[in-house]
Amino acid sequence: MINTDALATGFSAVLPDWVLPLVRGYDAPISTAEERMALVHALADRNHVAGNGGPFAAVVADPVTGEIISVGVNVVLSSGLSSAHAEVTAISLAQTSLRSWDLATVRPGLELVVNWRPCAMCLGAVLWSGVQRLVVAGDGPELERLTGFDEGPVVRDWAEQLRLRGIEVEQDVLRDGAIATYTSYGQSRALVYNARRA
Amino acid sequence: MINTDALATGFSAVLPDWVLPLVRGYDAPISTAEERMALVHALADRNHVAGNGGPFAAVVADPVTGEIISVGVNVVLSSGLSSAHAEVTAISLAQTSLRSWDLATVRPGLELVVNWRPCAMCLGAVLWSGVQRLVVAGDGPELERLTGFDEGPVVRDWAEQLRLRGIEVEQDVLRDGAIATYTSYGQSRALVYNARRA
Repeated sequence: MINTDALATGFSAVLPDWVLPLVRGYDAPISTAEERMALVHALADRNHVAGNGGPFAAVVADPVTGEIISVGVNVVLSSGLSSAHAEVTAISLAQTSLRSWDLATVRPGLELVVNWRPCAMCLGAVLWSGVQRLVVAGDGPELERLTGFDEGPVVRDWAEQLRLRGIEVEQDVLRDGAIATYTSYGQSRALVYNARRA
Repeated sequence: MINTDALATGFSAVLPDWVLPLVRGYDAPISTAEERMALVHALADRNHVAGNGGPFAAVVADPVTGEIISVGVNVVLSSGLSSAHAEVTAISLAQTSLRSWDLATVRPGLELVVNWRPCAMCLGAVLWSGVQRLVVAGDGPELERLTGFDEGPVVRDWAEQLRLRGIEVEQDVLRDGAIATYTSYGQSRALVYNARRA
């Protein structure tokens, strides 16, 4: 007989209080992917200092109209959920707003802008989300070296695997901004919450 | 100026109403991994028929005491979140119960029992969760062939990648039960929600 009294029946994550005010007060342009990446960098820079999670942020946008559909940051620490990476948060919030587990069917062509190549988990999360374009600031060993985070085992042809499933990839967009974020994070001796490096 | 009025600020997922009653009424033993897999199969069989999501379930348990820490099913359809796979759901519910994003620090040695080798996303989700043992019913092309789901690009040495991060892997536990579930699902012509196969 299994005791079900202690079992949780739901889980949730919320954006930190400072996120929407920051976005509302953001007065730089956001009509290009590069401009949206600048917003992502601003969010990532603030996120780790605020203590909500790692130095990561992501935005789902309509690249044609420039409309921001969702804004996410890594909330692993503040939500208590190890999967609440910036990509998962931004995708889940977009799916909540648009009321569909498949963004492509309700709003084709959406773009996810994020400040590094997704980790092993988030690469899969992007695949299943229905976004049709992924814009990253960069990829390579700098993230792990500067921050101590483990990206997990990502297939070598990750960008091609995305393209095979109808997701365009744009790389190296404001790469220096990402490096600056990770450098600042590394120097802050912040908590690295997944340091079980292989 | 970004209009933040339409932006979602949180997301959540809940277990379907039938899950806890099924678990409460489950009177078979659950003291071994094989016995816990039988519970997973029962949950997976019910889940897709109930229309909550794919034919997948997962349980987090303490393999020493046999205690069930959380029970999850795939709730992609009912939650509207593409990342709400059985593993993510079970892990998130365990982290919610135990109030930590790292299960290993609050309750070392926990096991995740799931009815197939995790997809690309869930492999990463397992890595970051703090579970220290993964028990799967099987791996191989049968899942994709029988159900139509895409597992995504998973590294060839996935089990070794888990072991390198302190997660033991036990494979082929009640494999036939998983095949039976997927066969039944395939024959039901249910919705395959991630059919963007590479």
